[in-house]
Amino acid sequence: VNNDLNTDLTTFATELADAARTVTLRYFRRPLDIEHKTDTSPVTIADRETEQLLRQRILQRFPEHGLYGEEYGQHGLEQRHRWVIDPIDGTKSFICGVPTFGTLIALLDGSESIIGVIDMPALDERWVGTAGQPTRFNGEPCRTRDCSGLADAALFATAPEMFQGEDAQRFQRLVRRVRLRRFGGDCHAYGLLAAGFIDLVVEADLKPYDFMALIPVIRGAGGVISDWRGQPLGLGSDGRVLAAATPELHERALVVLNAD
Amino acid sequence: VNNDLNTDLTTFATELADAARTVTLRYFRRPLDIEHKTDTSPVTIADRETEQLLRQRILQRFPEHGLYGEEYGQHGLEQRHRWVIDPIDGTKSFICGVPTFGTLIALLDGSESIIGVIDMPALDERWVGTAGQPTRFNGEPCRTRDCSGLADAALFATAPEMFQGEDAQRFQRLVRRVRLRRFGGDCHAYGLLAAGFIDLVVEADLKPYDFMALIPVIRGAGGVISDWRGQPLGLGSDGRVLAAATPELHERALVVLNAD
Repeated sequence: VNNDLNTDLTTFATELADAARTVTLRYFRRPLDIEHKTDTSPVTIADRETEQLLRQRILQRFPEHGLYGEEYGQHGLEQRHRWVIDPIDGTKSFICGVPTFGTLIALLDGSESIIGVIDMPALDERWVGTAGQPTRFNGEPCRTRDCSGLADAALFATAPEMFQGEDAQRFQRLVRRVRLRRFGGDCHAYGLLAAGFIDLVVEADLKPYDFMALIPVIRGAGGVISDWRGQPLGLGSDGRVLAAATPELHERALVVLNAD
Repeated sequence: VNNDLNTDLTTFATELADAARTVTLRYFRRPLDIEHKTDTSPVTIADRETEQLLRQRILQRFPEHGLYGEEYGQHGLEQRHRWVIDPIDGTKSFICGVPTFGTLIALLDGSESIIGVIDMPALDERWVGTAGQPTRFNGEPCRTRDCSGLADAALFATAPEMFQGEDAQRFQRLVRRVRLRRFGGDCHAYGLLAAGFIDLVVEADLKPYDFMALIPVIRGAGGVISDWRGQPLGLGSDGRVLAAATPELHERALVVLNAD
């Protein structure tokens, strides 16, 4: 019964991603007014209109569910089921015509993220994770790569300015141990990890709508995702995220991040 | 006559890009052995096979032309016409499954870069520049954006480690003046500039095969491209590149890069 319910909810989540695409792709690479929020991150009418559409769809279908979105805040957070959505992850990429922006959709059952969608509209790539099932990349099951040593690992992060103060040193300590480091991923990096193309994503300063959707995707592909202390991610997490292709690699990255 | 010749050569350059796609896309997101060159940059069989194919085609059609490629060096550099090619620009992206890698093809007439192709196989995007003609983005004429002030400019660079020593400070000085900075572009950033989505690309530590193809693309779209002293780029340039959407923006960026 639980599996059937999860399948229905997963189907609904992918329908949400389909709907979001119609809005984001209509605005992508078109002239847009850009506002700057209080935290100076850019936001456009595309972010707002996409989130409004997703809210509408969710409210219509599941009026009893809670909802937490990047642009319009939260309601019903006391509910068992809560949707956590980021209409455009990588707004900077979006407004610069870079096709690696994504839409993130998560469904929480209690504190557990049971469904996650990483959708890349302009790349026509989609990762769907459902608790207890293999993650699917464009409909096909996918797996992380069998990488257990830091010296073999390719590490991604969206931007160096994520890492402030001591975090910058902790991140650099890890970078010195890996084979390759690349900036500029946005949520696409987590999809690449789930599909076995890279091995580590290490980020900080993320919000729940940036990471809740990643959890079922990474786990269902055989990877591990946590905060920098190895604790499970949740709505109360501190915004530091470590995703790894294997438990061994995750453990080794944790040791380096937390070394004195 | 000169225009007809340039049109024929441009057609041939795009045929080269078509041929390169068949190789790069065959290897993209497939398991690959990665070697590390003496400068530690990664190289794969995809880089080597693509360059071999392009060399073969050029030699067959224009045996009298010179050729300079990233992987197999140069010959005939004393010739009037010389091809300068980078089979895979953004090998790091390529080996990580990131679709923003590209193929760069330039033709020099004397010291002048008269034809440039920026081809993005996995994105199905192509910019073609021919001296004296408007740059084409996927077949359609494109223009840079009308951005003249640093405070309005979006600036891209591939990675922070490009900027060593004093260059890092010069780059940071410019970053503090612009609206937005993003890492992770590879050659795609120059295409985005030519198509009017971003306004500045500032890089260092580039080789001639990284930048010779960019020149006709940027110029034919109304932009300006030079080294950090404002001098034209050539085979003997020092690897610092500044591309701007407008002459005014280019001048202002030069002033900041060269301020004491």
